[in-house]
Amino acid sequence: MASEKPLVAVTCTAPVNIAVIKYWGKRDEDLVLPINSSLSVTLHQDQLKTTTTAAVSKDFTEDRIWLNGREEDVGQPRLQACLREIRRLARKRRSTGDEDPLPLSLTYKVHIASVNNFPTAAGLASSAAGYACLAYTLAQVYGVDSDLSEVARRGSGSACRSLYGGFVEWQMGERADGKDSIARQVAPESHWPELRVLILVVSAEKKLMGSTAGMQTSVETSPLLRFRAESVVPARMAEMTRCIQERDFQGFGQLTMKDSNQFHATCLDTFPPISYLSDTSRRIVHLVHRFNTHHEQTKVAYTFDAGPNAVVFTLEDTVPEFVAAVQHCFPPESNGDKFLKGLPVRPTPLSDELKAALDVDPIPGSIKYIIATQVGPGPQILDDPHAHLLGPDGLPKPAA
Amino acid sequence: MASEKPLVAVTCTAPVNIAVIKYWGKRDEDLVLPINSSLSVTLHQDQLKTTTTAAVSKDFTEDRIWLNGREEDVGQPRLQACLREIRRLARKRRSTGDEDPLPLSLTYKVHIASVNNFPTAAGLASSAAGYACLAYTLAQVYGVDSDLSEVARRGSGSACRSLYGGFVEWQMGERADGKDSIARQVAPESHWPELRVLILVVSAEKKLMGSTAGMQTSVETSPLLRFRAESVVPARMAEMTRCIQERDFQGFGQLTMKDSNQFHATCLDTFPPISYLSDTSRRIVHLVHRFNTHHEQTKVAYTFDAGPNAVVFTLEDTVPEFVAAVQHCFPPESNGDKFLKGLPVRPTPLSDELKAALDVDPIPGSIKYIIATQVGPGPQILDDPHAHLLGPDGLPKPAA
Repeated sequence: MASEKPLVAVTCTAPVNIAVIKYWGKRDEDLVLPINSSLSVTLHQDQLKTTTTAAVSKDFTEDRIWLNGREEDVGQPRLQACLREIRRLARKRRSTGDEDPLPLSLTYKVHIASVNNFPTAAGLASSAAGYACLAYTLAQVYGVDSDLSEVARRGSGSACRSLYGGFVEWQMGERADGKDSIARQVAPESHWPELRVLILVVSAEKKLMGSTAGMQTSVETSPLLRFRAESVVPARMAEMTRCIQERDFQGFGQLTMKDSNQFHATCLDTFPPISYLSDTSRRIVHLVHRFNTHHEQTKVAYTFDAGPNAVVFTLEDTVPEFVAAVQHCFPPESNGDKFLKGLPVRPTPLSDELKAALDVDPIPGSIKYIIATQVGPGPQILDDPHAHLLGPDGLPKPAA
Repeated sequence: MASEKPLVAVTCTAPVNIAVIKYWGKRDEDLVLPINSSLSVTLHQDQLKTTTTAAVSKDFTEDRIWLNGREEDVGQPRLQACLREIRRLARKRRSTGDEDPLPLSLTYKVHIASVNNFPTAAGLASSAAGYACLAYTLAQVYGVDSDLSEVARRGSGSACRSLYGGFVEWQMGERADGKDSIARQVAPESHWPELRVLILVVSAEKKLMGSTAGMQTSVETSPLLRFRAESVVPARMAEMTRCIQERDFQGFGQLTMKDSNQFHATCLDTFPPISYLSDTSRRIVHLVHRFNTHHEQTKVAYTFDAGPNAVVFTLEDTVPEFVAAVQHCFPPESNGDKFLKGLPVRPTPLSDELKAALDVDPIPGSIKYIIATQVGPGPQILDDPHAHLLGPDGLPKPAA
C-alpha cells in the first residue's frame, strides 16, 4: 500500500544503438520528427549500457536528476518533454480504467539517477541509451505499457531505436502529430549471431558541433540532404532490411558504408560545413577498403556518427585478423593490454601479403582503444534492489 | 618561304584557372563532355603560368614532347587527341580556302616543349594551363583561329577555361558531338580590379586519387553527384554570373564556398569515398568562417580542388589582415621570408579581439607557403625568339 511504501523505485538498463541508415534532420523540431526513416543495430549491454533508477515519493518536493553522480538541471526542455509525455500516457491509461499496479499519485515528484558504463570520452551517443532508459524506467514506475517511441524520441530522436534489441527501424511516419513516427524491431538479437561490432575509439582533439545544432543547420542549408531524405533513403531502408533478413553481409556492409559516407557528405554540404571525420577516421576508411580489396569481398564495414570514432561491423571469424590489421596500422601507444576491451579477441599474425596490401605508415596512438561487442537485447528491468542508484532517502547512493 | 625556314617555332603562355562552380564528372569520357557547366577565375600569369613552344619542321621524324625539360611519351591518348583535333581544324581551314600565313605541311612532325613556373608540388591543376597552352600554341603554328575549346578540352576538361582571361564559363552544351561544349568569357580581367587570390599551399602527406579516375568513380556511384549536376548547378551558374557582374563579394564568396563544399561532399558520397581535404584544409575552412563571423560579413572565401591546398578569394584591403591571421594560425616553420610569394603583402598586426575570435591552437608548418595573385589575362604569344624553349635544332635549349 502506498502509505506503507513511501518510495517506489525501479531500475532498468538500456543499450546504445548504431545507425546503419542514418537519421539526420528533423521536419518538426518540437516533436522530434525526422525527415527520413533510419535503421540501427542495438549493441550488447554487457559492453555498453545506461542504468537508470527512477523513484517516486509523496515526500519529494521537486523533480530532480543526477547523471553519472552529478545533479543536473531538471528543467531542460527535452527532459521536461519526456516527463510530461510519460505522465500524459499514465493519465490516459488510468482514465481508460486499465489495472494500475502501482498506487501512486501522478502528482508525486520523481527522482532520477542515471549512469553510463562507458566513458563519455568514447564519444558514443550516450543520449540515445540515456533517454531510452529514462522512458523505459519511467514507464515501469507509472505502469505504462503502450509504445514508448514518443517518450524516448522527445528526449533524443535516435533514443526510440534503443527501446528494442536486435535490428530496429525508426519509421519516419507521415502524420503531423508524430503518432506514426515509431520504432519497430526488424529482427531480434538472436537473428545474426555471427555479427560482431568493433568500436574504434579515436583520440579526438577538438570540440565538435553537437548533432542537434548540426542537423538543424543541415536541414536549413544543404540541398543534398533534402534530396537524400526524399529520394535516396526510402530504397535504402528496403534494401538494408532485406540484407539483414537474409544475413547478406556483403550487401549489409556496403550499404552501411555508403550511407555513412552520404550522411557525412550532407554534413560537408551544410553551410558553414560540418566535419565530424578526422584524418584518423579517413585512415580507418582507407584501411577497411584495402582490407576488403585484399580479400576480394566486403569482410568489414565502417560507419561514423557525429564524431571521429569508427564503428566497424564484421563477422566473428574475421575479427582476429581485422583487429591485428588495426593494431598494425595504429600501434597502441602506452596502454598496451587495455587496447582491447569488451569481448575477448586474439589477434592473429598478419600475412605479409595483407601487410603489403594495407600499405600504410603506422601512426601510433591515434586509436586509443577498441571495444569488441555484438548485437544485444533491448532495455531490461533489474529486479535486485541493490541495483538501485537511489537510496531509501531518494538520493544517489555514495557508490554511484 | 618554307625552303628558307626549315623550322617554324611559336612560343605562348597560358594561365591557371580556379573553378568557383566546380566541374566534376563527364557524360562522355571520349569527347570530355561534362555533366554540368562550370565557372572559373583566371589567375595572373605573373605568378602562375605554363610556357609552351611548338616547332614544326620537315626535318622532324616524329612528334615529340618535353615537359619541364623531360621527354614524355607523345603517344598518350589525351595528347594525341589534341594533336589530331588541331590538325583537323587546320585542314578544315585550308579546305575552306582561308588565307594561310604559315606555308607548312600538315604532315610535318611537331616538337613541343612546355614548362611551368610553379612547382608541381604546389598541387595546382597544371594540366589545365598546360593543355590550354598547347592548344593555343599549336593554333598559332597552324594558323587556326576558330574556337579552341574542343582542342584544349580533349587534353583536360578544365583546360578550355584557361583559354580566356578574367571570369570564364564552360557551357556544358547539349549536343552529343560536343560542338556546343565551349568556354566563354563572362567578364574580362579588368572587371573586378580589387579581387585578390591567395593560394595556401598545404604540406601534403600522401598520394591522392587523380581527378580523372575520381570523377569517373563519382559519376558511377554517387547519387548526390547526379542530383547536384542536374538540379543544383544550373541555378548556381546564373547566380555566380550575377555576383561577378555586380562585383557582389558577399554573394560571390558564399557561393564559392558552398560549391566547393558540395563538390567535396559528392567525393565523399563516391564509393569507395574520395577525400581530398586534409585536417589542415579543414582548419583553413574553420579559420575563414571565424574570420568572417568576427567581421560580420563574408570578407574571405575558400575553394578546394582535388587536393588539400586552399585557394582563397578576398578583396585587396582585406589581404594584410587575413594573411596575418593565416600566419597566426599556421606559423611558418623554417622558410621565414619565403612564406609569402607573389604579389607583395604586408601583414598587419592582428587585434586581440580577432586573435580571440580565431580560437585556434597554432600548428606550425602545416601551410608551406602562400602565393598572392590576382585575376589575369588569357594566353599570350611571346614575340621574343629568345623565349623559345626549343633551339634551332628543334631540341630543348639547355636552360629549359
